[in-house]
Amino acid sequence: MKAELIFTGSELLLGHILNSHAQFLGLRLSGMGIEVTLHTTVGDEQESLECVLRQAMTRADLIIITGGLGPTTDDITVETLAGVLGLSLVLHEESLAKIKERYKERGLEMTKSILKQVYVPEDAMILPNSTGTAPGALIERGSQVIVALPGPPNELIPMFEKQVAPFLSGKIAGGAITSYKVFKLTGITESAVQDLIYDLGGQGNPGIAYVAKPGEIQVRLTARATSPVLAEKMLAKLSLEIKSRLSNYIFSSDDEILEETIGKLLLARGLSIGVAESCTGGMVAARITDIPGSSGYFMGGVVSYSNDVKNKVLGVPAGVLERYGAVSREVASAMAEGVRKLTGADLGLATTGIAGPGGGTPDKPRGLVYISMADASSACSREYRFPGIRAAVRLGVTNAALNMLKLYLMDKRDQR
Amino acid sequence: MKAELIFTGSELLLGHILNSHAQFLGLRLSGMGIEVTLHTTVGDEQESLECVLRQAMTRADLIIITGGLGPTTDDITVETLAGVLGLSLVLHEESLAKIKERYKERGLEMTKSILKQVYVPEDAMILPNSTGTAPGALIERGSQVIVALPGPPNELIPMFEKQVAPFLSGKIAGGAITSYKVFKLTGITESAVQDLIYDLGGQGNPGIAYVAKPGEIQVRLTARATSPVLAEKMLAKLSLEIKSRLSNYIFSSDDEILEETIGKLLLARGLSIGVAESCTGGMVAARITDIPGSSGYFMGGVVSYSNDVKNKVLGVPAGVLERYGAVSREVASAMAEGVRKLTGADLGLATTGIAGPGGGTPDKPRGLVYISMADASSACSREYRFPGIRAAVRLGVTNAALNMLKLYLMDKRDQR
Repeated sequence: MKAELIFTGSELLLGHILNSHAQFLGLRLSGMGIEVTLHTTVGDEQESLECVLRQAMTRADLIIITGGLGPTTDDITVETLAGVLGLSLVLHEESLAKIKERYKERGLEMTKSILKQVYVPEDAMILPNSTGTAPGALIERGSQVIVALPGPPNELIPMFEKQVAPFLSGKIAGGAITSYKVFKLTGITESAVQDLIYDLGGQGNPGIAYVAKPGEIQVRLTARATSPVLAEKMLAKLSLEIKSRLSNYIFSSDDEILEETIGKLLLARGLSIGVAESCTGGMVAARITDIPGSSGYFMGGVVSYSNDVKNKVLGVPAGVLERYGAVSREVASAMAEGVRKLTGADLGLATTGIAGPGGGTPDKPRGLVYISMADASSACSREYRFPGIRAAVRLGVTNAALNMLKLYLMDKRDQR
Repeated sequence: MKAELIFTGSELLLGHILNSHAQFLGLRLSGMGIEVTLHTTVGDEQESLECVLRQAMTRADLIIITGGLGPTTDDITVETLAGVLGLSLVLHEESLAKIKERYKERGLEMTKSILKQVYVPEDAMILPNSTGTAPGALIERGSQVIVALPGPPNELIPMFEKQVAPFLSGKIAGGAITSYKVFKLTGITESAVQDLIYDLGGQGNPGIAYVAKPGEIQVRLTARATSPVLAEKMLAKLSLEIKSRLSNYIFSSDDEILEETIGKLLLARGLSIGVAESCTGGMVAARITDIPGSSGYFMGGVVSYSNDVKNKVLGVPAGVLERYGAVSREVASAMAEGVRKLTGADLGLATTGIAGPGGGTPDKPRGLVYISMADASSACSREYRFPGIRAAVRLGVTNAALNMLKLYLMDKRDQR
């Protein structure tokens, strides 16, 4: 199966934003064994899109078009597609009803232009948009498949994963399969990771690749085989070895959303949490409260940037602050205990450290961080050294703190 | 002058790397007044590249090809280009001498394959590579210009800046210049924005385009003119009208980093800030503390998810919570005042609202948010309705809250 991707949007053409869809769709389609042969980016201009689409239709089995499904005048994908295929546009009642409901719910008035997005090509399979308003469309013409997806990544990605990928998998059953597994690490540099697992392989099959992101190193394993079962078997063996060598640094794997796992664990254990943050400045609380329903287990947090707030709000004794300094094991534990008591939560989680660029000393260098977890019986602190710039340290500490909470909760499995 | 960009490389097609050249060249060329009309990405395969190149030659005045100039078998750009144009390949003596010297310097042995990159199309203007080995090439055919640049960004960027950009500037002297301006909005939907400024234009000159991001709508204005002064004049007139119609929603423009502006204003006014957050759950504090040196003006924050924390930590009276509910103008103000007193800051900023997906009622729907700013003399709350999913609402509220703080500080200009 050969695929061509067409990206629409003047903001892509003019370089105002990076084309992350090219990467996402390229990776996902090739991972499914579909041969991606061409990417084209066109502006929000009907003639261009029409020309590119007509050419793609002479060559490709699968054509995916991104963007241009919205309500504004520069959104021209649906009209162009219908024009080229000779299909008329029909009102999609379900999408209209959904939009009406959304607007009513929020007490907003429906605007005229919003209606544009609920017209879809006749005979298309409509792809509901779970995170936005404009539906996608999938059209089959003989053995050729044409898909139109919305431009915003938070709409495109779930629509692709939940609706397009399963459809395509059904079409291509039988070819070679690539499986992959991703480990996410924090508190270590890319080269140090590599030194620890160098002997396990590189670009072969299974293969190991490294991706450095701010506050996170990803170790990506891939395996190609004739069946998913065989590919998974190859991955499982390699994963086991990697986990045992890197366990100190792995905070998550694959598509796990750490804060979602934590939410489920807290609910299952019937426990609540409060958070005290210095160097992460609110990032840990923000991640925990990203999850709908987090008010069921998140009591509250304190961002204690000044020593005064650490002392007066969290009750960290002035003597402890003076003796050990704000970045210390002792203060981290006192913060965790303090926020637990202050918010009335079962558990307290605290971070304190030097994110940089300033503030480091020979004794307490930039990147030195203490994270502490407290429950009714005790508080435990752990020391970390995070590499990288301020933003990377803050992200890395946030991941490590959430991971400490996750591991604590997994350990509490049988204690309820 | 119309330009098409052709990117070669299977790693781009398969999504193994993000295409940063698309962004760099798109921005640079459009900034020079060259109209970029199409991007195409092809694999390392002669037939594909040939086909794409032939098509581009029928439409564009300028064609830039990136990648495929190296020594390996998958580097096919030069041969393909020469084939399509009917040019023979000739040895480029200077490039050969330079490579020989490099290898000698490093004590390395010359491999046969390395010689491949010193063959160039006859009559081409050779672009020396100051940071790598493969030279680039610039070919003029009548009024058409075809440029081949190396793939690695650290080779492509200096070659473009030092050699290609000056050449193109010479060609287009007297040509058109494109200027642009971006407004970032929150608390409104894309279609509502369009309804408010529909009559001001769309794809003309000046042009208006829309980009929806989570928690943010961007309105992008572009103007083409024969000089930067004229283009700026066109933008200024349009900007003024747009600002007056959308002032309630604009939180930032162009490349401003809101939290950086706020940091500078706080330092300049000698004021400090404390933050109390409900629906944003720590995101406002996290944004403020993203800035190095923020400990100089950020005293601390409270994430008051539960009513208990609002009451006990922030001192929001239980009666106020009961009478008006946690999501109310009154509670927002009490939170802002409370956190100001608790942290000893000059100013207090607070958010409370319903981020969803649950928690909405007919009276207080999902997306209803109150943001409040308090100083020593008073606290002011404002009501908002944010569209979109939970993550978009939270981001939008964070932007709006930071904007409220910025506007307050700008207003305080003369009062110190």
